[in-house]
Amino acid sequence: MSTPNPCGRLYLIPSMIGNCPANYCIPPYNIQIVNRLSHFIVEETSSAYRTLRHIGFNGSFDNVTLYQLNEHSRPEDITEYLECTKDGHDIGLLSEAGLPCLADPGAYVVRLAHSKDIQVIPLTGPSSIVSAIISSGMNGQCFAFHGYLPIKSPQKENKIKSCEKYSAEFHQTQVFIEAPYRNNQLFNTLVSICLPTTLLSIACNVNSDDEYIAMKSISEWRKSNAPDLHKKPTVFCLLAN
Amino acid sequence: MSTPNPCGRLYLIPSMIGNCPANYCIPPYNIQIVNRLSHFIVEETSSAYRTLRHIGFNGSFDNVTLYQLNEHSRPEDITEYLECTKDGHDIGLLSEAGLPCLADPGAYVVRLAHSKDIQVIPLTGPSSIVSAIISSGMNGQCFAFHGYLPIKSPQKENKIKSCEKYSAEFHQTQVFIEAPYRNNQLFNTLVSICLPTTLLSIACNVNSDDEYIAMKSISEWRKSNAPDLHKKPTVFCLLAN
Repeated sequence: MSTPNPCGRLYLIPSMIGNCPANYCIPPYNIQIVNRLSHFIVEETSSAYRTLRHIGFNGSFDNVTLYQLNEHSRPEDITEYLECTKDGHDIGLLSEAGLPCLADPGAYVVRLAHSKDIQVIPLTGPSSIVSAIISSGMNGQCFAFHGYLPIKSPQKENKIKSCEKYSAEFHQTQVFIEAPYRNNQLFNTLVSICLPTTLLSIACNVNSDDEYIAMKSISEWRKSNAPDLHKKPTVFCLLAN
Repeated sequence: MSTPNPCGRLYLIPSMIGNCPANYCIPPYNIQIVNRLSHFIVEETSSAYRTLRHIGFNGSFDNVTLYQLNEHSRPEDITEYLECTKDGHDIGLLSEAGLPCLADPGAYVVRLAHSKDIQVIPLTGPSSIVSAIISSGMNGQCFAFHGYLPIKSPQKENKIKSCEKYSAEFHQTQVFIEAPYRNNQLFNTLVSICLPTTLLSIACNVNSDDEYIAMKSISEWRKSNAPDLHKKPTVFCLLAN
């Protein structure tokens, strides 16, 4: 006998990035949804309570169940987290910053939900990656996000050179991030090894008071003062021609 | 003598996708900004008035200046549009659906703004591409958006096969769109030429009442009823292994 389809749904719930208030980047509908849910999959329970308050949850946490998702979570744990949907409960996958599943954990939860025919509903919210792409002035019809570059030399330099070459060939914007304490180093590497005509955009502290977004050719960056990106979340976009 | 830096800024203003109301996907801050601006770069003036109302502009249009951006716009036109920033006016780049510059025109406006040291401020809003990626359950640490696939055979099939191969090699999620009246055809092509173990996700009518998001392996899709995607905006994501 097959079990009936579950009717609970999986909501993908964004949270704020930067230091802006919720109304800057969280649509009112998200607040309605968050207050309707009592089951959440989160990265870290203690910070999740704070995040839920920040994005507008105003009820009591007494009736809220949090399930922790981290590198130790096994597939069978996540299967168990999704069990509540069988009783008709919706469940939220909460990001700690930005969008779940975009440079953020959670893809496996979504994949499992699909395999169980649980409806997946993405809510709208901020993403520093997406903001960086649209404000780069580069090709938004064709782009690739690479996540973190390799840490070591010469793998890092090789990856940058291959991104640059691919970008020139396919007119594809190349997007990547770095551990924030290595941002200045990456900036210097990019400016020193990329071609003078290659465009480089820097999106730093997106959605904060001191958001800094600039785009110049490598030759222009070489003549400019380098921005201080140390320990500031930054997204790098590159377009070669 | 160098001219002083302009103080007007360029806001990137998203609009709704699907048939959901504004509060579903537009943060309150965007409405504040839209009502503060009197200069907008738009795709089409008549629909722009409607879009502005939809996203919360509630003033009179008498004092609003719209500048049209289309395939006929020349660089000197856009330079002229941005002139108002020299008088301290902020200007908005308005999308007709979703985010400006993401599968949407406007990148050249942003590029020109950067070259003139005009601050570029991206606002948060919905994107069917981004929603498709996060709700695919696929790799969100590494993905590529290809825009439209080639229209003709065998270029289309070759592109799909090369995307699939690249995806398997680099564990990169491949994202593309099709002219809505050819969606069913593309779906059939994907299901027939991709490997059985390749994952395919379909995000159709995102942010509409009848939003449909599903992810299965090609072999599962072959056993399922094909979804009807005809003339419905759809984003396709593919991950090979």
